[in-house]
Amino acid sequence: MQFAGSHILSISQFERADVERVFAVADNMEPYARRRRRTRVLDGAILGAMFFEPSTRTRVSFGSAFNLLGGEVRETTGFEQSAIAKGESLYDTARVLSGYSDVIAMRHPVSGSVAEFAAASRVPVINGGDGSNEHPSQALLDLYTIKAELAGRGRGVDRLRIAMLGDLRYGRTVHSLCKLLGLFEQVQLVLVSPTELRMPAEIVETLKARGHEVVESDTLEASISHVDIVYSTRLQEERFTTREEADLYRGRFRLNQSIYTAHCEPNTVIMHPLPRDSRENARELDDDLNDNPNLAIFRQTDNGLLVRMALFALVLDVVDQVDACSTPVTWYTGRREL
Amino acid sequence: MQFAGSHILSISQFERADVERVFAVADNMEPYARRRRRTRVLDGAILGAMFFEPSTRTRVSFGSAFNLLGGEVRETTGFEQSAIAKGESLYDTARVLSGYSDVIAMRHPVSGSVAEFAAASRVPVINGGDGSNEHPSQALLDLYTIKAELAGRGRGVDRLRIAMLGDLRYGRTVHSLCKLLGLFEQVQLVLVSPTELRMPAEIVETLKARGHEVVESDTLEASISHVDIVYSTRLQEERFTTREEADLYRGRFRLNQSIYTAHCEPNTVIMHPLPRDSRENARELDDDLNDNPNLAIFRQTDNGLLVRMALFALVLDVVDQVDACSTPVTWYTGRREL
Amino acid sequence: MQFAGSHILSISQFERADVERVFAVADNMEPYARRRRRTRVLDGAILGAMFFEPSTRTRVSFGSAFNLLGGEVRETTGFEQSAIAKGESLYDTARVLSGYSDVIAMRHPVSGSVAEFAAASRVPVINGGDGSNEHPSQALLDLYTIKAELAGRGRGVDRLRIAMLGDLRYGRTVHSLCKLLGLFEQVQLVLVSPTELRMPAEIVETLKARGHEVVESDTLEASISHVDIVYSTRLQEERFTTREEADLYRGRFRLNQSIYTAHCEPNTVIMHPLPRDSRENARELDDDLNDNPNLAIFRQTDNGLLVRMALFALVLDVVDQVDACSTPVTWYTGRREL
Repeated sequence: MQFAGSHILSISQFERADVERVFAVADNMEPYARRRRRTRVLDGAILGAMFFEPSTRTRVSFGSAFNLLGGEVRETTGFEQSAIAKGESLYDTARVLSGYSDVIAMRHPVSGSVAEFAAASRVPVINGGDGSNEHPSQALLDLYTIKAELAGRGRGVDRLRIAMLGDLRYGRTVHSLCKLLGLFEQVQLVLVSPTELRMPAEIVETLKARGHEVVESDTLEASISHVDIVYSTRLQEERFTTREEADLYRGRFRLNQSIYTAHCEPNTVIMHPLPRDSRENARELDDDLNDNPNLAIFRQTDNGLLVRMALFALVLDVVDQVDACSTPVTWYTGRREL
Repeated sequence: MQFAGSHILSISQFERADVERVFAVADNMEPYARRRRRTRVLDGAILGAMFFEPSTRTRVSFGSAFNLLGGEVRETTGFEQSAIAKGESLYDTARVLSGYSDVIAMRHPVSGSVAEFAAASRVPVINGGDGSNEHPSQALLDLYTIKAELAGRGRGVDRLRIAMLGDLRYGRTVHSLCKLLGLFEQVQLVLVSPTELRMPAEIVETLKARGHEVVESDTLEASISHVDIVYSTRLQEERFTTREEADLYRGRFRLNQSIYTAHCEPNTVIMHPLPRDSRENARELDDDLNDNPNLAIFRQTDNGLLVRMALFALVLDVVDQVDACSTPVTWYTGRREL
Repeated sequence: MQFAGSHILSISQFERADVERVFAVADNMEPYARRRRRTRVLDGAILGAMFFEPSTRTRVSFGSAFNLLGGEVRETTGFEQSAIAKGESLYDTARVLSGYSDVIAMRHPVSGSVAEFAAASRVPVINGGDGSNEHPSQALLDLYTIKAELAGRGRGVDRLRIAMLGDLRYGRTVHSLCKLLGLFEQVQLVLVSPTELRMPAEIVETLKARGHEVVESDTLEASISHVDIVYSTRLQEERFTTREEADLYRGRFRLNQSIYTAHCEPNTVIMHPLPRDSRENARELDDDLNDNPNLAIFRQTDNGLLVRMALFALVLDVVDQVDACSTPVTWYTGRREL
């Protein structure tokens, strides 16, 4: 894959070597994301952050990543008041707005809209989520986190053992993660969901065809007993016929510290794409896991910065100049590693 | 006109020499807007972008222009939640907010409000549109585009032949453009509109009094046959008594490639202030014109950057320092000229 | 108080020496806030401005203050669409968002929420207002203004004579200001309010216990006759049983130039936390005071920049580096002192 000048629209653009290239660049971003050094490699470049659907987390992550490379950010949020809402075509919007920036990060509620926008854009576009379709930087940061969490243990993504929990039918993040995992070797997946919310069959078949091992289940305890990663997702109540049915499943997929201690191998990593629900009857991961050092959910969001910095550096072709434009950081950074 | 420290509120502030001064500075901005070079001449300066009425295009254009000169942007959008809505006077708002920035770009739904704000501001204010009243940077970028489009043909704005189409009665952009054209010599204007949406008589009379030739018409084909520029605008349905009447006119003013080929001289330039309506029954310019190299609508928005950079450089008095603060751009810029 | 790395949540964190430390740093920020010099001491640092409740004035002031130190700003405004609204805990929001910035300025409608957020944040958090609870930078800028206004007269905050007018029961700013004044010596306070909107008794008792003189009144004229500062606040109509009762009080607390001339000592300083209401029947300070050189309300908001710059420099521990990273400003700054 040729990164310079390319749109990043779908994880299906990525071969294994491309993923590894992104991760190698992301590794090099760590001193900048951790504020040990400052780089100005994108001094003067402008990110157009077009969030036609709200998303605090993803929007701020893209924006901060661009700032950390020395660039500026011009944001647009909301939709109702936009020219699109007044009948302007995505083609016109893309032609105009791409004239104001050097790269665009875009979220839009309609599946396929980001690709349509990108086709008319005069600068590279990174998909920040188009409806239920794609959110490639999330899948990349998830896999990057898996790799980083396991690194200290002398293991890699090849031969990974992972359990995915929750709504596997509609969850965009688990679909994308499965596709990325499929690029590696001998992954063992335990897919834990209510029967009506199972992983789509074609994703399962593709994984199996590539030699991966896939087991499906609808109970938690046994499924999480022999894995490296437990990847939990939100179980959406509205997917069920009755509330009683939802409650039934919720109890089965809710992870807390006592279940973790009783059933997981030591140092099993816990992940979640966030936000996790904190309301009593809707929790996927209990608060008593917050002190568990294997809870990696905030390392995931931290890694999102590294991955997005890497994507920007790659599409704007400045990977080799990042370090040369850098200086030490002089302000207070003491709390960050907490 | 003394630019340094001045507000830019109305095109009536501009004499021909002032317009030409803006355009000369805008010409010099091209390497920066096209990302061939980077300047930091406004390093540390802050633009207060006050958009009390939404406008993605104008807001992002002003913000990016300021970033391209090295400055920072602090934005305020919306109105309902503002102190003004809670009873604060424009005077107080202006006194306070002008203390936080070095120049302000402001849009407001109420005609005259930007001038009222400017009177109390402690920094220069650029009008980004006050209701149906003024939007001077739009008129300047339109005229700059006309000049640039004709430049390759050995012609200037003097002796320009231009057709303006659509709602000429309420269209703020065509009014302002007519006033600017009036500063030049021997312009020939064909004003094409429904009878009830004709250009206001005083604008026509002023043009004629200055020796320009003005013809009014309500049919498209003959009007666009001997002009350098066709300037199309939105025909707003709500201006008509019945939908049938609107449809009648819409058919007459809608330009597409076959009409262009049949009636226009070669290389007639097509302009529009945007957004253009992409809905089937409301189009002014058909999509089949998108491949016509004389469709200048996206060059207009690109030129908006140049003109707004020029206005900022002039009111902040840094025109002579722009180049001295510049360096080459090192990141990927390959797609921009597409 | 150890500033480096600390949260700034409440004025109760401040001893007199801490207040004086902030003010000394604020004094040094003047050349930068007034655009006589430019510093880049926070080059590469990111402010996360989290405004879960709208506030143009405070938000722009924090953002501009950070820009003036050379840093970047990533803003989030509004609440309805946020992950918090979808059930995410403040803990999770804080853990995630604090990974994207170096310091956070936060406003939130719920009292205590900023402290809860700060407890989970990995970077220093500055409270920009949490409901009716605290807004420490406002109290600091008010006191800084008092000190600055009196400075030319050879007087300090010790032995200050101040009248506070309006709703003293619910007004967050006057509560905080009283607490700060309590740290100094022999202050004389005249508290002027309707009986039902008197200053809370515990604040009055605390002031008296520290040896300050407190007089309470419900009429304007005598109260403002022998003071250095008249601090006016909004009288909120909804606090009264009937509109007639509100009108009765409003007349009594409304200050205009003729009352000022008739009753105040020469050069009595007029302050207000803003916004002041400009609607005919709701004014606290009439427009005819706008030409009175002792009207300090816009110097208050200007001083807000200095105080917020000081807080950022202190918590990020760059106070000693500000000047070394500075250069002269070269763009137009002629209007600012107006």
